[in-house]
Amino acid sequence: MSKSMPRLYLAGPEVFLRNAVEIGEAKKAICRRYGAEGVFPLDAALDLSGMSGEEAGMRISAANEALIRSSDAIVANMTPFRGISADVGTVYEMGFGAGLGHRVFAYSNVSTGLTERTLRELRHSGERGSDGRLEDAHGMQIEEFGLRDNLMLEGGIRISGGEMVLSEAREDRIYTDLKAFEECVARAAGKLRSEAIEV
Amino acid sequence: MSKSMPRLYLAGPEVFLRNAVEIGEAKKAICRRYGAEGVFPLDAALDLSGMSGEEAGMRISAANEALIRSSDAIVANMTPFRGISADVGTVYEMGFGAGLGHRVFAYSNVSTGLTERTLRELRHSGERGSDGRLEDAHGMQIEEFGLRDNLMLEGGIRISGGEMVLSEAREDRIYTDLKAFEECVARAAGKLRSEAIEV
Repeated sequence: MSKSMPRLYLAGPEVFLRNAVEIGEAKKAICRRYGAEGVFPLDAALDLSGMSGEEAGMRISAANEALIRSSDAIVANMTPFRGISADVGTVYEMGFGAGLGHRVFAYSNVSTGLTERTLRELRHSGERGSDGRLEDAHGMQIEEFGLRDNLMLEGGIRISGGEMVLSEAREDRIYTDLKAFEECVARAAGKLRSEAIEV
Repeated sequence: MSKSMPRLYLAGPEVFLRNAVEIGEAKKAICRRYGAEGVFPLDAALDLSGMSGEEAGMRISAANEALIRSSDAIVANMTPFRGISADVGTVYEMGFGAGLGHRVFAYSNVSTGLTERTLRELRHSGERGSDGRLEDAHGMQIEEFGLRDNLMLEGGIRISGGEMVLSEAREDRIYTDLKAFEECVARAAGKLRSEAIEV
């Protein structure tokens, strides 16, 4: 593997799919086409036999943190997962990468904004206080920043020097469609390569 | 402020409450009782007037990242927020802190495990494949590690040298009860102080 080939950690909820390994291979093939090396969470290929659930969970977490440390940037699948927002495991990895100084790139196969998705998921029209503040049924503010997810995520991407790509995948391909992923990898690889040349 | 007073960044979804500033003050008062300085996301007191939603969001994100960098550890409220898991903004901040090398402490006012909460929220009993794998209606795996949330969160806390505190708050005080928070601060302050003495 050439030293100049940037390593992209491929975070996302597709690890929960039955064909996760296959999707991981497809993602890595796309990375190679753009001169990058894709690092998939399941690459660690851990032997978890004989471990308790908790031990296994801790082992996977440690392996993933090590893979992120060994990478140059994150490419995260922020497609909403089992609710309003991105998968929290993916979000943790985005933050972890940003804290390490990695660029964080992300994509989502759902382009609807956070405010609209929140109201839909809560089955609530949102109430406005006298100050115009949009609130849920518990009086908790619903963000209206025109963003795709919580502001820390989109802000983190921006601050790290990454980018976000949006797409609208077919409902039945929401976790498997790789169009936005490919565009995201193209941008990440381009940015990391130009950086490597500057240095 | 004494140099030896550890700074704890207080991440959590209570920033969305109407009385967020008041809760922040209560949390900081508890920190002081344990010899620590609480750093609340709203401390930046930003002037966002005249900004677009997106500009305001980016400004808040940058301010929060700066507050985290200026802190020694994270104390995160992982109480499930608008769905199965912890608030994604909080989770991003946990990951960011861990990436920076901060210890990550966390608490939750809901002690039910992730697997049970997931099945309840999805209104699905979970199906098992022939290999015993627990899946949702989309065939995506439901984690069964005996953990409170996604394994990256609990693993990250452990790897960072932090701890997690669980409690079961009254439903109407789920985002305001500070019992588990106080226990979490006590442990964080104790650990950070003993560390400072060792060094």
